[in-house]
Amino acid sequence: MFVLGPNRYGKAETRLVRVTKHGEAHHLKDLNVSSSLSGDMDAVHLTGDNATVLPTDTQKNTVYAFAKKHGVGASEDFALLLARHFVDTQPAVRLARVAIEEYAWERRGGHSFVRSGRETRTTVVHYDGTSQWVVSGLRDLVLLNTTDSEFWGFATDEYTTLAETRDRVLATAVNAQWRHTGSSDWDKSYERAREALIAAFAGTYSLSLQQTLYAMGSRVLTDCPEICEVRLSLPNKHHFLVDLSPFGLDNDNEVYVAADRPYGLIEGTVLRPDAPAAGPAWE
Amino acid sequence: MFVLGPNRYGKAETRLVRVTKHGEAHHLKDLNVSSSLSGDMDAVHLTGDNATVLPTDTQKNTVYAFAKKHGVGASEDFALLLARHFVDTQPAVRLARVAIEEYAWERRGGHSFVRSGRETRTTVVHYDGTSQWVVSGLRDLVLLNTTDSEFWGFATDEYTTLAETRDRVLATAVNAQWRHTGSSDWDKSYERAREALIAAFAGTYSLSLQQTLYAMGSRVLTDCPEICEVRLSLPNKHHFLVDLSPFGLDNDNEVYVAADRPYGLIEGTVLRPDAPAAGPAWE
Amino acid sequence: MFVLGPNRYGKAETRLVRVTKHGEAHHLKDLNVSSSLSGDMDAVHLTGDNATVLPTDTQKNTVYAFAKKHGVGASEDFALLLARHFVDTQPAVRLARVAIEEYAWERRGGHSFVRSGRETRTTVVHYDGTSQWVVSGLRDLVLLNTTDSEFWGFATDEYTTLAETRDRVLATAVNAQWRHTGSSDWDKSYERAREALIAAFAGTYSLSLQQTLYAMGSRVLTDCPEICEVRLSLPNKHHFLVDLSPFGLDNDNEVYVAADRPYGLIEGTVLRPDAPAAGPAWE
Amino acid sequence: MFVLGPNRYGKAETRLVRVTKHGEAHHLKDLNVSSSLSGDMDAVHLTGDNATVLPTDTQKNTVYAFAKKHGVGASEDFALLLARHFVDTQPAVRLARVAIEEYAWERRGGHSFVRSGRETRTTVVHYDGTSQWVVSGLRDLVLLNTTDSEFWGFATDEYTTLAETRDRVLATAVNAQWRHTGSSDWDKSYERAREALIAAFAGTYSLSLQQTLYAMGSRVLTDCPEICEVRLSLPNKHHFLVDLSPFGLDNDNEVYVAADRPYGLIEGTVLRPDAPAAGPAWE
Repeated sequence: MFVLGPNRYGKAETRLVRVTKHGEAHHLKDLNVSSSLSGDMDAVHLTGDNATVLPTDTQKNTVYAFAKKHGVGASEDFALLLARHFVDTQPAVRLARVAIEEYAWERRGGHSFVRSGRETRTTVVHYDGTSQWVVSGLRDLVLLNTTDSEFWGFATDEYTTLAETRDRVLATAVNAQWRHTGSSDWDKSYERAREALIAAFAGTYSLSLQQTLYAMGSRVLTDCPEICEVRLSLPNKHHFLVDLSPFGLDNDNEVYVAADRPYGLIEGTVLRPDAPAAGPAWE
Repeated sequence: MFVLGPNRYGKAETRLVRVTKHGEAHHLKDLNVSSSLSGDMDAVHLTGDNATVLPTDTQKNTVYAFAKKHGVGASEDFALLLARHFVDTQPAVRLARVAIEEYAWERRGGHSFVRSGRETRTTVVHYDGTSQWVVSGLRDLVLLNTTDSEFWGFATDEYTTLAETRDRVLATAVNAQWRHTGSSDWDKSYERAREALIAAFAGTYSLSLQQTLYAMGSRVLTDCPEICEVRLSLPNKHHFLVDLSPFGLDNDNEVYVAADRPYGLIEGTVLRPDAPAAGPAWE
Repeated sequence: MFVLGPNRYGKAETRLVRVTKHGEAHHLKDLNVSSSLSGDMDAVHLTGDNATVLPTDTQKNTVYAFAKKHGVGASEDFALLLARHFVDTQPAVRLARVAIEEYAWERRGGHSFVRSGRETRTTVVHYDGTSQWVVSGLRDLVLLNTTDSEFWGFATDEYTTLAETRDRVLATAVNAQWRHTGSSDWDKSYERAREALIAAFAGTYSLSLQQTLYAMGSRVLTDCPEICEVRLSLPNKHHFLVDLSPFGLDNDNEVYVAADRPYGLIEGTVLRPDAPAAGPAWE
Repeated sequence: MFVLGPNRYGKAETRLVRVTKHGEAHHLKDLNVSSSLSGDMDAVHLTGDNATVLPTDTQKNTVYAFAKKHGVGASEDFALLLARHFVDTQPAVRLARVAIEEYAWERRGGHSFVRSGRETRTTVVHYDGTSQWVVSGLRDLVLLNTTDSEFWGFATDEYTTLAETRDRVLATAVNAQWRHTGSSDWDKSYERAREALIAAFAGTYSLSLQQTLYAMGSRVLTDCPEICEVRLSLPNKHHFLVDLSPFGLDNDNEVYVAADRPYGLIEGTVLRPDAPAAGPAWE
């Protein structure tokens, strides 16, 4: 009667901490793993026949078992290992998606760690039995420039009240994902892309956050030949200059309100002209 | 050198409370409005030329001015009014997206209100100068059945430890969106769809959450001829039976742990065979 | 060398769902239980000798076992049962504190439930082997009046810019706790106190949120003879009138911004003149 | 009829970003400021007479004006400046409390910054017209040891199921506050106390988290003569060893589940024998 459209199912947010011990020196990987499977799933939806359903509980178990058997290196490699396993061992599964968040820790001595609090590293991989797609990224990388940002010459209408400015604070919490063309040294690639984002934000004399976004995406592509496409979602975290004139004080770009809501939201994609088709990479 | 791909920008989370007074009786609409515009935006990305950019600040002002000029009825109508305005008045804007969250309040006397805390109602509309697309929905509608849920007959492998069950708690926090074919009495449609979701969840003897998902989507389509497609994202909020045998106690489905993470995540679409093409509706 | 001062330890946020079945009709209690014990705990702090430490894991087990053995009625009764158990069975424990949050659900048919989303009900009890103290309360009861609120005649100084107002929106998210003199029908007492808070907020023509706070506390004491003290923490959730004059529009208390931060915060206590000493009740 | 008990009011979470420019090098302070005043406030509660009420809006303005006039050095100094101002200029105000959260940023070049994400630094000061009390602290300093933690020899009862362990992961998110005896170089004192907490956590061979707590508090007092009392609230962030035996795998403290809830919660105070009376410091 009705049609079953696109669907997938899996276990979300399996929290895994993997310790590796090399003598006195311990290493720590702290991950949040989510897997989703899709394929021949009509029966379970239409009649509740679970014969093709690998339970989400089993997916969780696989995460932990693989962490032991194979260790955990770069998140991208661990995600690919899991995705390949689900597709290659389950006849009904046509496509697997594995997403991982990784939290950074800093070493203190042999076996003590302080969570760094820096941005969250992310990866999303897909595998369909033949091809794989790898997207890496980060979120909550919070950046701020105290100057070298202008905003003027914009379109106006009867609802315009914003004044033009030649000097403002520009701040954002970077949410970025980038698609790889092939395999890579994922950890080095990550640090290179992260550094490119920061350097482009810091180094761009900005006339608009859109311009900065394009500069950030372009810098990643320039510095990382292994990456073919970058998607950025940049909230414009407004910092409003406080009017201190009622108190007989000037405010030469010194005192700001950091506002919560509303915020601007600038979203955009930068890619190579010859980027291969994305397939399911962004789903 | 690099290509600017899909992009959009706007003001997110403009918080609007609109009071309407009919004599002693006051009415309240409590909304969170986000607008996004796209179109001829190459220049601003490539050179920082803002000539085609209607500032996000102006978009915010428009929300407030329209709330005064036109009042706020159903969220869908208010969203369409805004989307049409942006496209029809800004030559560079080819597509507008307006998303609204609405929070429900209950009246107490003439001018006093208690926030109800029930689920958040949502809408996302698109307008391209010719056509409009309307998606309505809700999130955080938390449902639980204490029985009439089984899970067995699933695929197994070497990582399977889950026992089959013939009686379990089934709980979810419904995240649903549905696409309208045309215009509608949006408020009545919303209550009908919401009621269909609850009734289908409560009334389905469930062999899997996928089966329940399909039943929920189908029920919305059955009860709401104005809707052509339903997308559901259902976390399986696990309730684990506590093993009380170490204390000499049985547990006949009476005492549960409500777990946070990980959780199952079941996502699926149910649509009419003749549903029109979705266009940008889900973007 | 250094002194060990006040200390306690326990298991926080044990999530318990208790189902009770009376034929076809099922009942649901959804709780978040935290226990803390204190007493002769010098050795564990100074030398790591755990002989007097009842592990937090055992405290968690006790919550689940008691839910089975004794059922779960009013949160206050369940908390007292746990507190008495820990003090009465553990020689080293001199004082137990049990805090419970309760989430409300609405029935749909025999065994289906919708989480209501209304405020969270709370309780904190203490027991020292002889005496018990019971505090009940709620949080996130969000209330709003669209009129009958003024604010003027306040102190001014060189940093004052606020204009006086004779008509404003007044909104808050009530965080209230009230101390009982003795035992009570806790569920009825809760509904009576909750209703008193709402009625006083709605019915007070307010010249300041402090005045409203005192009225709310007084109403609870008036309507609930079993309660001797009320503590309220009321954020003043500012709703700012939008200046629409740049658009040629007036704004006769119709269009508001609901602001996030900063917010006013009004805290106060109302108690009976003959309220008994509070002992550890508020710790 | 009823008694007005302890009360205070103020503006919470005033978000302040203060930029200071020394030639090309910019400096950034990012604060969240909350002030609370108490004193002769009977009239406003009982009759709504606001004559003694300095509006919370004015308190907010004062934060911004003082940031301009006096600059922002250590949070403690800025908080004291504000507290003194409110008490010294408002006859009705007997006690002021100013609490500040501070977020750390790292410099990148002259005017670009990356939010560090490390723990939040806190301060709470009180001033009553004569004396001042300064408490400094931090929250969300997340620490983890992969070994050198045992837990055994604990009290048992009929609800005990926990196995003893001679080697476990110990992890916590430190929430600490410490009271100063006098004035200090607050920034240096903060780094010294923070370092003491980390060093004591990392360096203590732990038989219980209580023992570690005492060691952390003691280390702060040892390393910081300017501090007389330390209060610690340490969640025991459980990391459970995954049972991999169903998959024919051992787990030699390598693969863990990082659990959310429930968690242990260990709270305690360590102070000097001659610590002066705390007065309102901890309120």
